[in-house]
Amino acid sequence: MHSDSPALVTLADIRAAAQRIDDLVLRTPVIEVPHPEDPDRTLLCKAESLQPTGAFKLRGAYNAIVQVIDTARENGIVAQSSGNHARAVAWVARRLGLDAVIVMPEAAPQPKIDAVRALGARVDVVPNSQRDERAAQFVTERGSAHIPPYDDERIIAGQGTIGLELLEQVTDVEVILVPISGGGLISGIATAVKSLRPEVKVIGVEPELAADAQQSLRSGERATWDVLDTYRTIADGLRTPSLGERTWPHVRRYVDDIVTVSEEQILDAVRHLAIAGRLVAEPSGAVTTAAWLTQELPAGKTVAIISGGSTDPALLARILESPRL
Amino acid sequence: MHSDSPALVTLADIRAAAQRIDDLVLRTPVIEVPHPEDPDRTLLCKAESLQPTGAFKLRGAYNAIVQVIDTARENGIVAQSSGNHARAVAWVARRLGLDAVIVMPEAAPQPKIDAVRALGARVDVVPNSQRDERAAQFVTERGSAHIPPYDDERIIAGQGTIGLELLEQVTDVEVILVPISGGGLISGIATAVKSLRPEVKVIGVEPELAADAQQSLRSGERATWDVLDTYRTIADGLRTPSLGERTWPHVRRYVDDIVTVSEEQILDAVRHLAIAGRLVAEPSGAVTTAAWLTQELPAGKTVAIISGGSTDPALLARILESPRL
Repeated sequence: MHSDSPALVTLADIRAAAQRIDDLVLRTPVIEVPHPEDPDRTLLCKAESLQPTGAFKLRGAYNAIVQVIDTARENGIVAQSSGNHARAVAWVARRLGLDAVIVMPEAAPQPKIDAVRALGARVDVVPNSQRDERAAQFVTERGSAHIPPYDDERIIAGQGTIGLELLEQVTDVEVILVPISGGGLISGIATAVKSLRPEVKVIGVEPELAADAQQSLRSGERATWDVLDTYRTIADGLRTPSLGERTWPHVRRYVDDIVTVSEEQILDAVRHLAIAGRLVAEPSGAVTTAAWLTQELPAGKTVAIISGGSTDPALLARILESPRL
Repeated sequence: MHSDSPALVTLADIRAAAQRIDDLVLRTPVIEVPHPEDPDRTLLCKAESLQPTGAFKLRGAYNAIVQVIDTARENGIVAQSSGNHARAVAWVARRLGLDAVIVMPEAAPQPKIDAVRALGARVDVVPNSQRDERAAQFVTERGSAHIPPYDDERIIAGQGTIGLELLEQVTDVEVILVPISGGGLISGIATAVKSLRPEVKVIGVEPELAADAQQSLRSGERATWDVLDTYRTIADGLRTPSLGERTWPHVRRYVDDIVTVSEEQILDAVRHLAIAGRLVAEPSGAVTTAAWLTQELPAGKTVAIISGGSTDPALLARILESPRL
C-alpha cells in the first residue's frame, strides 16, 4: 500500500453498518440454482434482487444516509444516478420523510425517471456531463447531504454487510462471485470475507465489453475505459469506466481474480436464473451466474451475488423467448 | 365436527414437521411488493417459489417421506402427479438416494416429464384415468411407500410449516392469502395460524373457473366440479375438482373466507410480481397477489403466499410483453 492511500474500510465498519441498516434492509435469501446439465451441481445465489428497491444499492445508501441524518432532515439529500442507486436513495428518503433530489442524465430511460418520481423524489434532468456539477451545487447552495453511488467508505461498508450475511448463511463457502463496476460492492464484500475467512476466494465478474477492472487488477494500475466502449454492454449497471479512487485499493488488496463474460453468456444467464431459479435478474445481476456457467473458476462451494433485478419487461420477454437460449 | 371426521392435524404435528424438514427446505423470504398506484401500500409475499424445487410442495412431500424412510429405502417411493408434487418427490428421492416412480398422465407436458426424469426418477406415463390405480399397483406389488399430493395428514402438517415461519417473520400480520385447490396448503397454514393467533384472517384464493372450494365453504358441503370446467383455468396447479376428504374439515373449521379471481387478473399479477417484486411466479402462485390487487379483502397487514414459480418460459414472455398489462 502507498502511504498516501486512504485508509481501508474495516470489518468493524461493516459490522457497524449491519447494525445501522438492519431495520429496512432484507437479509436476502440464498437460493439453490441447478446446473442445466447436472442436477447435482448447484450454484448458491444470494438474491439482492429481492431487496425492496430491487438491488443491493439500498445497503450502502441507507448506511450513508443514517450517518448524515441531521443534515438530511434539515437540508435534504442529493444523489446523481440513473439506476439502482437513485431508486435506493429515493426509497430511503420516502421511508424516513426526507427531501431528496436525484440528478439524472438526459439519456436516462423514462421508466427509470418515472420510478424515482413515483417515490416522491424531485428529479433534476441534466446533460450527462453536468451531473456531478449539479449535484455539487445542491450541496454548496442548500447544504444538502451528498450520497455518492460507490466511491465512499460508508457505501463500501454498507455493501460489505452482504459478505457478513453470506458467511453466516453458507458457512462452508469456498468461492464468491461478485459483479464489479465502480467497485463498491466487491470492495465491501471482499473486506468482510477476507477479514474473517482469508482462504475464501473472491472473484469479480464484468462484461468483456467493460473489462477495465480486470485490466486494472492484472496490470496493477487503475485503468479507465472510454464510456463509448463500456456503454456497449447490455449490463447497464456495469458501465462505469473505472474503479473508484477509494474502491481500487480494496480491490487490489482483497480480490483474487476478475473474469469476464460475453453479452450472449449474460443473456443466457438471465434466462437460466428466471427458469431454474425463479429469480428475475437484470443483466448486471446475472454476470456472476454467466461466469459460473461458462468460465473456468476455482473449484469449491460457490456463491454468486445476484446484485439486482430491475429489468425492462420487454427485454426480459425477448430473452425468455429466444429459442437459442 | 361430525364424530366420524378424521382427527385434525394439530399444531404439535406441524412443529414436529418443521424439525423434520429443516435441513432441506428453505425458510423462504418475505418480499415487499408495492402497489402499482401507491408506493406506501405494500404486499408482503412469502416466496415459496424460491424453494429448490420451485414450490411449497417440497415441505409436505419431504415430511411424508421422512416418516416412511425405512420402507422407502427398501422398496422405493411412488407418487402420482404431473406438477410440483412430482418434482418435489423426485428431488427428495435424489437427495436421499431413494428409488422413485412418478406416475404421470399422458396429458402432462413433455418439459415436466423431462424435468422429473432429469432428477433420476422413473416416470410411468399412463392414461389420466389410470393414475391412481397404477400408483396403488406399485404399493401392493412392490411395497413402495405412497406419497400422496395433498389429502394426507403428513402433507398438511408439512405445508403448515409455512404458517409457523410467517408468524415469526411478520409478527404483526393481520391477513394471510393462500391459494386453494386440493386444500393441503391452506389446511396446514390455517391450522398453524389459528392455533397461535386466532384473530389473524386466513383467506383462500382460487380462480373463478375452478371455484369449487368457495362453493364448498359457502354452502357447507364439499362440492365437486367437473374437470372439464376446472381445466379451463391457466392456473394449472389449482384445477383439482374438489377439496380432499381430509383437507375439507380443516378448511371448514379454520378458513375465514374464499375469494376468486379472473384469468386476466391472474396474468396481471404474474406480471406485477416479476416487475415490481423480481419474483417469477406461476399463475397458480400469483392468484393471491391478484386478489390483493383487485378484490375487497379485510383491512390490515397482509401476507400473500406465492406458492410456486414453475412457469413455462414462453408463457411468461407473452405475459411480460402484453401491452394491456
